[in-house]
Amino acid sequence: MTAKRQLHLGAFMRPISIHTGAWRYPGAVPDANFNLGLQVELIRRLEAAKFDAFFMADHLAVLNMPIDALKRSHTATSFEPFTLLSALAMVTQRIGLVATASTTYDEPFHVARRFASLDHISGGRAGWNIVTTGNPETAANFGQDDHLEHATRYARAREFHDVVTGLWDSWADDAFVRDIDSGVFFDPAKVRALNHAGNFLKVKGPLNIARPPQGWPVIVQAGASEAGRQLAAETAEVIFGAADSLANGQAFYADVKGRMAALGRDPDSLKILPAAFVVVGESEAEAQEKRARLDSLVHYDSGIRSLSIMLGHDVSGFDPDGPLPDIPETNASKSGRERTIALARQENLTIRELAARAGSYAGLAFVGTARTIADEMQQWLEERGSDGFNVMFPFVPEGLFDFTDKVVPELQRRGVFRQDYAGTTLRDHLGLARPANRFFA
Amino acid sequence: MTAKRQLHLGAFMRPISIHTGAWRYPGAVPDANFNLGLQVELIRRLEAAKFDAFFMADHLAVLNMPIDALKRSHTATSFEPFTLLSALAMVTQRIGLVATASTTYDEPFHVARRFASLDHISGGRAGWNIVTTGNPETAANFGQDDHLEHATRYARAREFHDVVTGLWDSWADDAFVRDIDSGVFFDPAKVRALNHAGNFLKVKGPLNIARPPQGWPVIVQAGASEAGRQLAAETAEVIFGAADSLANGQAFYADVKGRMAALGRDPDSLKILPAAFVVVGESEAEAQEKRARLDSLVHYDSGIRSLSIMLGHDVSGFDPDGPLPDIPETNASKSGRERTIALARQENLTIRELAARAGSYAGLAFVGTARTIADEMQQWLEERGSDGFNVMFPFVPEGLFDFTDKVVPELQRRGVFRQDYAGTTLRDHLGLARPANRFFA
Repeated sequence: MTAKRQLHLGAFMRPISIHTGAWRYPGAVPDANFNLGLQVELIRRLEAAKFDAFFMADHLAVLNMPIDALKRSHTATSFEPFTLLSALAMVTQRIGLVATASTTYDEPFHVARRFASLDHISGGRAGWNIVTTGNPETAANFGQDDHLEHATRYARAREFHDVVTGLWDSWADDAFVRDIDSGVFFDPAKVRALNHAGNFLKVKGPLNIARPPQGWPVIVQAGASEAGRQLAAETAEVIFGAADSLANGQAFYADVKGRMAALGRDPDSLKILPAAFVVVGESEAEAQEKRARLDSLVHYDSGIRSLSIMLGHDVSGFDPDGPLPDIPETNASKSGRERTIALARQENLTIRELAARAGSYAGLAFVGTARTIADEMQQWLEERGSDGFNVMFPFVPEGLFDFTDKVVPELQRRGVFRQDYAGTTLRDHLGLARPANRFFA
Repeated sequence: MTAKRQLHLGAFMRPISIHTGAWRYPGAVPDANFNLGLQVELIRRLEAAKFDAFFMADHLAVLNMPIDALKRSHTATSFEPFTLLSALAMVTQRIGLVATASTTYDEPFHVARRFASLDHISGGRAGWNIVTTGNPETAANFGQDDHLEHATRYARAREFHDVVTGLWDSWADDAFVRDIDSGVFFDPAKVRALNHAGNFLKVKGPLNIARPPQGWPVIVQAGASEAGRQLAAETAEVIFGAADSLANGQAFYADVKGRMAALGRDPDSLKILPAAFVVVGESEAEAQEKRARLDSLVHYDSGIRSLSIMLGHDVSGFDPDGPLPDIPETNASKSGRERTIALARQENLTIRELAARAGSYAGLAFVGTARTIADEMQQWLEERGSDGFNVMFPFVPEGLFDFTDKVVPELQRRGVFRQDYAGTTLRDHLGLARPANRFFA
């Protein structure tokens, strides 16, 4: 009998709930997104439940919304990922720590160095969620007049990835000999300057920090556009996916794993983890009731702006009770736009209905009992819709405890989720090999 | 009777010892500079001894040395400041956490955000050591052909400071109302975009994190050149000074505090803390012996390169036993160059002798018993040579414990150093006021 396929679970923790009504839910902590003590409590619970990773999305600007909608956002103030994850590394031992860093608005030397440092501090638990930054208003915070065009962002992202991973390989794993007698601290044959000069970046190196314990922190990628899928097939080890149905999940899974095979990469060396919004009840009715209550807390001003962000286009001027008109492409995230348009067309939604979905959560949701949720997750796993999920909690702390205390034991009982960590690094949890050093055997 | 003037003490902890022979000293931890467990132990000892702050210098490149000298450097691998200090914030409650960030090779939005996040995570203990970056080879790690010229670096630094502090003021302290009933998370009248457009930088804002608990993290500055002094008089709250004698210290102290008075700033709103290399013995002879032993561990290859860095000029080709020839100005740090030339002329040193000083420590050193060291520190304090010191330890852990366990109690006994922290923030420890918000009363 072969071992059952195993689920991998990430916890999507920035924002600590994606739902714009989360902070108003009865019993929820309103400042959860910016409450360090609570974050410590929650990551400890996630670690006790054996989650693979704590996952931080990120933004480099307050959201691109007019102030009357923005004022309702519980994410307007947030911790910066490297400072928060480094702090959380000290109160946990095993759980992975995934930080988002932009390839459009940062320097590869800084990014490589910070992830290497986080990986050393956490004993090999870091992951890098590579984003090209979807919010066009970010440009104005970084001295730019315009956000880079989508294709250019992805070309730069690919080069940026190659530079960062090259910098991580600056030092052989055994470079630091620290020979007290001869006074030689490192072996000079075991350090290499990268001397990169490409279309977008020029970086000499070497990095001023030892190779990360994991060799490279785990490479995570989220884009679902054509360019995003190709970048992921070439470079990613985890995809933060956005499939909203099992059929779409299977198509995406087959597409990306097929691209990998065509590139000569082992399809198992990348784990596809779609985002899943999970609401747990004692009964299906109770779960549905919780979700309806939560959705009722979304203000229309907020929903219409969330929808505009997803579309990369301001739709507040259209008739709320009419259908979604054709929306032109922009430089914002392509995958969000495509998903939202597909949803509108599929279910024939008005703009008002679509705004309600956008402000609550428009993507894949599992709403039910621990049992029905485990059923669905298991089905996705067994039918190759995914290798697990990035779980989004509806509100905290109870919405998270519902998952760790009810759903996780059910998954464990079925033998599809670990009872304990088998290793110590994020690569261990995900079953990913440690990358060879390109310069040193 | 008026209260005695009080010393302020920073611990210079990156590198964990500035002395290039430190890692080879008998009983020293050779990988101390990159040993997280040891850093945790040391910061706890420094906090127990009531130090004002743990201070991290920084580099954005491995040192600008040929490999035969570099291979002897125990700082070739180091933690990145924000990741390390955020981690250390979780194992301490009171001690200040000062990180270095460059105004030449970073973006003000990133810098403002990271310091704000560290200040929130640590409960108001962050400080920003503003540097313009002295190592010209850094440019090649950031896509630049040349290091910016010294005056341009300082002009940009001033503008960068104004942008960062402006971003910290994005939100009024009471902006986040989190009114669950109305669904309003923040008061829109209490957030402001900076809309900065200057000679070097264009930054819109607002910052996506609440105003730091300290209002602004404490502003630290180290340059001692004319441009550096003026920047400090205008903006700094702590100077990491480099005076190497009481007379020089007094002249520097009078100069900077005089500039402040001329600018209308209260001279007490800036604390001048020169670096002091401290070696403690049970007797003066034992202390001198410790230092001699430590100095004997510096290799000439290493010393001549440290000297070249200090001068911003390669001097390895000159006759080691001849005097220092005239050295031209470069784009590297001006103050290091000036100090080193003055030392050579004053004591009529050969290049070999100067290299030995450079590789050990060429600046202010207190070498003696707890009593004589306390005498000297007290004299500097009382005679207005400084407001305290940034203490450099000769090796760790014992060289640090000698200070915390022997010198600190002696200073406390004399009533010139705190028995306990009176407040909780770094501003509290240093007696600095919380800055008003430029946009909100």
